[in-house]
Amino acid sequence: MSTTRRDTYTPETLLTVAVRIFNERGYDGTSMEHLSKAAGISKSSIYHHVSGKEELLRRAVSRALDGLFGILAEEHARVGTAVQRLEHVTRRTVEVLIAELPYVTLLLRVRGNTDTERWAMERRREFDQQVADLLKEAVADGDLRSDVELRLATRLLFGMINSIVEWYRPDARGASSGEQVADAVVQLAFAGLRSTG
Amino acid sequence: MSTTRRDTYTPETLLTVAVRIFNERGYDGTSMEHLSKAAGISKSSIYHHVSGKEELLRRAVSRALDGLFGILAEEHARVGTAVQRLEHVTRRTVEVLIAELPYVTLLLRVRGNTDTERWAMERRREFDQQVADLLKEAVADGDLRSDVELRLATRLLFGMINSIVEWYRPDARGASSGEQVADAVVQLAFAGLRSTG
Repeated sequence: MSTTRRDTYTPETLLTVAVRIFNERGYDGTSMEHLSKAAGISKSSIYHHVSGKEELLRRAVSRALDGLFGILAEEHARVGTAVQRLEHVTRRTVEVLIAELPYVTLLLRVRGNTDTERWAMERRREFDQQVADLLKEAVADGDLRSDVELRLATRLLFGMINSIVEWYRPDARGASSGEQVADAVVQLAFAGLRSTG
Repeated sequence: MSTTRRDTYTPETLLTVAVRIFNERGYDGTSMEHLSKAAGISKSSIYHHVSGKEELLRRAVSRALDGLFGILAEEHARVGTAVQRLEHVTRRTVEVLIAELPYVTLLLRVRGNTDTERWAMERRREFDQQVADLLKEAVADGDLRSDVELRLATRLLFGMINSIVEWYRPDARGASSGEQVADAVVQLAFAGLRSTG
């Protein structure tokens, strides 16, 4: 068993374990010892794959960031009115967040104590800024209300989206699918709770 | 100096310091030693005021919970249509959250490792449940849309509201007032981002 396990251990499965432990204990609170125990392999085996926990963090947040920035490259994020592009980006952000739940959770929780954490926060701010720019453009087009301050609207939109990592449990009985949650976010964010009938 | 400080130390100022440290280090990560250093008084002086850190936690989260449950006792939370009462409760929840920011932040972060934490989580769920009931009633009245699943809508509404503790900084330059944030939340939650003109 133990030999098989060692043989089949890949950087990918190590990353899965590391992200789980980072989310459970916090990145700062995780030692190589914790990772070694959780993965069931020795520390020297881990060092065979990666230079240390910061590399694992970089790989993990890169996966989340690649997912998010990939959205901005999609056709529907580049073509159409600003409000259409914003709706697309909102929907896809929720879908990516749910598809890459542990990775985005980690990204949203990094604190900025290391170079990698600061880089991740900087990239995340770039993403948020691009969404904020879309919101601004849609307000200028007259498609979004102008009576709510832009910065506040952006914060609240992301507040709603990012809250998903706190309560969404894909394995819960009757859990909504990523698409259902994305639909709900788009409906609420753009049209609100009130019935229009 | 030191004598004066000791003399003027009250349970109230001790609570203020304790809540700040709990929020910075996490409740689990805070020792009486940390509290003693931050407050600038000896541990035995702290024990003169309270039985330990769990009592400080109980007092702090009680302050947040009293604020929140106080809302449900207000006239506008009891009289009117369900949607009117829900709007009032939403607005006031944001205002209380901002007025009692460190206390509500702590309440939202407790993890359930001690009796006091579990009690706080239970009370918080009771509050959320009462808001969810209002939402349900307003949907039944036909005043809120029925195409978004109730549990999802409640989660997203609280997600937006609770995110405020993550980004609102009352001392930041040009910070919005509690009333401005409450207005924005009510506008977005009930009418959405889209302009109706």
